[in-house]
Amino acid sequence: MNINGKHYRTIWLKESNPGAVQIINQQALPFSFEILDLHTVDDIRKAIRDMFVRGAGLIGAAAAYGMYLAALEAKESDFDDHLLASAEILKATRPTASNLAWAVNLMLSKLLNKPGSLKQKIEEAKKTAEEIASSDAECCRNIGLHGLKIIESMASKKNGATVNILTHCNAGWLAFVDYGSALAPVYAAFDRGIKVHVWVDETRPRNQGASLTAWELGQHGVSHDLIPDNSGGHLMQHNLVDLVITGADRVTRLGDTANKIGTYLKAIAAKENNVPFYVALPSSTFDFSMRNGLQEIPIEERDASEVRFIGGKTPNGNIIQVQICPDSTPARNWGFDVTPARYISGLITERGICRALEQDIMAVFSACSETRVSEQL
Amino acid sequence: MNINGKHYRTIWLKESNPGAVQIINQQALPFSFEILDLHTVDDIRKAIRDMFVRGAGLIGAAAAYGMYLAALEAKESDFDDHLLASAEILKATRPTASNLAWAVNLMLSKLLNKPGSLKQKIEEAKKTAEEIASSDAECCRNIGLHGLKIIESMASKKNGATVNILTHCNAGWLAFVDYGSALAPVYAAFDRGIKVHVWVDETRPRNQGASLTAWELGQHGVSHDLIPDNSGGHLMQHNLVDLVITGADRVTRLGDTANKIGTYLKAIAAKENNVPFYVALPSSTFDFSMRNGLQEIPIEERDASEVRFIGGKTPNGNIIQVQICPDSTPARNWGFDVTPARYISGLITERGICRALEQDIMAVFSACSETRVSEQL
Repeated sequence: MNINGKHYRTIWLKESNPGAVQIINQQALPFSFEILDLHTVDDIRKAIRDMFVRGAGLIGAAAAYGMYLAALEAKESDFDDHLLASAEILKATRPTASNLAWAVNLMLSKLLNKPGSLKQKIEEAKKTAEEIASSDAECCRNIGLHGLKIIESMASKKNGATVNILTHCNAGWLAFVDYGSALAPVYAAFDRGIKVHVWVDETRPRNQGASLTAWELGQHGVSHDLIPDNSGGHLMQHNLVDLVITGADRVTRLGDTANKIGTYLKAIAAKENNVPFYVALPSSTFDFSMRNGLQEIPIEERDASEVRFIGGKTPNGNIIQVQICPDSTPARNWGFDVTPARYISGLITERGICRALEQDIMAVFSACSETRVSEQL
Repeated sequence: MNINGKHYRTIWLKESNPGAVQIINQQALPFSFEILDLHTVDDIRKAIRDMFVRGAGLIGAAAAYGMYLAALEAKESDFDDHLLASAEILKATRPTASNLAWAVNLMLSKLLNKPGSLKQKIEEAKKTAEEIASSDAECCRNIGLHGLKIIESMASKKNGATVNILTHCNAGWLAFVDYGSALAPVYAAFDRGIKVHVWVDETRPRNQGASLTAWELGQHGVSHDLIPDNSGGHLMQHNLVDLVITGADRVTRLGDTANKIGTYLKAIAAKENNVPFYVALPSSTFDFSMRNGLQEIPIEERDASEVRFIGGKTPNGNIIQVQICPDSTPARNWGFDVTPARYISGLITERGICRALEQDIMAVFSACSETRVSEQL
């Protein structure tokens, strides 16, 4: 991704000090572009929990770098114990995200019960974390190339008229190490001169659409409009949406998809209005151990204050939280919902597009297991 | 309605000066309770346009009082002309709301081309506006009694366990002169000791749920939780919603219903999850001249700033607007959407509950016309 013309990833090792992980502080966007240094497992834990980093792929990469920092913190004598304890701490930060456990388990598989010196193990941890990050970016680049075909085909069906794509939350480059999932096909299409326009759901309560997706699309020059989450049904009824593409936080082997709360409402509206609804994800977002997403995927409930307060910029340029309800109003805040596979037109993965059906998913990811994914690196 | 133990309507003539209309300033809620004096047609116009008053019934009552103020402003020589001009100004404030044109036309039918002195005409205008307001309150009281039966039946089906009702926007007492439409059955049930709990959609972009519905329910002591508009589908999937009741801004003779943007998404989610979805409305909200709501009901598009900025209370207690997106982000802001009749389980009206089907609606409102509604007063 380019930010003010310079290439960035969302997470990387500090050049002058490879004991520090650097991230773009997504809490500060869109109003300021800040880079933060993280030095400890606890720094990573807080960054994930408080959403300085967020998004399916980026959470995974951050956790991988967190395990590298754990290796740096460990002594030779308690290496495995410290890594196991760190793994539990990192996995507990966000219960719904599949990439988190995937990345942590992959790090463990490379580091536990292994021969070699502490130095060699640290080197292996660093190398694996870097590979996980690079693999995430490469998966997303390929998601873009596969998803591009859907947009190309829609553009051709519309005789070159603008393709209107609705997206929910942020599944762009900021949600991954680079490129993004849902937005990767949009960027690929835009870069090839296809006319695209994005309807950006603001995505309450944390407004990742308003603050991150709008900012990303603006940086890249892609035409877009911010809309309240309530608007998508109206737009679809009036043929103003050609395609919905969202990301995913966990997808079961049957294709049931957990994604940001509100995704399900857009999926059923798309079905009612015959609008294709695609979910874009790297294979690390699959959880092949689960079948029925509604029954099995744990849904994170976050603090009510995220609903009762909204952050924004004051006329003086200060960033503050304002309260939007009476002092005594209680609120509830589920972070995700599950879209059953039957509402999903297809899954856009790094290996191609498949239907959200077990046999199709398994045909594409035939030897799926943590081992396979690790071999893939 | 009671506010801090004192009975109020949302609009009334000032006791010490019947040339002034008083309203509760809904822009200031929930953080302060203010009463404003309106003296001219232009004051009323601005109060409706800028949403100091809002909600189906209250817009109608405010427009009726506006026509009374027009009568006060008129000279004997230009009485009819001034009323006609004022009627156009008031009708143009909010294009989707049906009660607005209904109330203005009813006032015109009582005042244009009539014999009598200016004083008599002013008296007639005052009397009719007061009757429209009282009729609105009485209709809502009856909506409450009819809707109560639905909640009673659900409570009995649940063996007395709490009935969870989801509502969108504010269709409570603040949206009418008193009682409300969607919330009238909730208040009626609560007052009879039935256990009810309300899921309050915050209702972006203007947050009428967070600011008005949450405040109303809190004043009345009804158990409730504020939720992002994105949450309703998830709640329905997990059997946490027994019933949806919303208000309406315009309902066609086929039962197609325009209501606050986002209502349609909840209606399709309710259908997908077998949750009854009711629309509560007084007969003044019907527009019997229209059939296909999607094609015929004009949908108001409001200023993009309502999406780009959110109002709230700062930690210092000041009420300000904060910007939630990058400076250059464009936004779109449709105020309403249309829920086709097939998603609606029933219409709760002052005359009883009927299916959202032309034959059923016409059976209940058999002699519907502006004349009939005027005779009803």
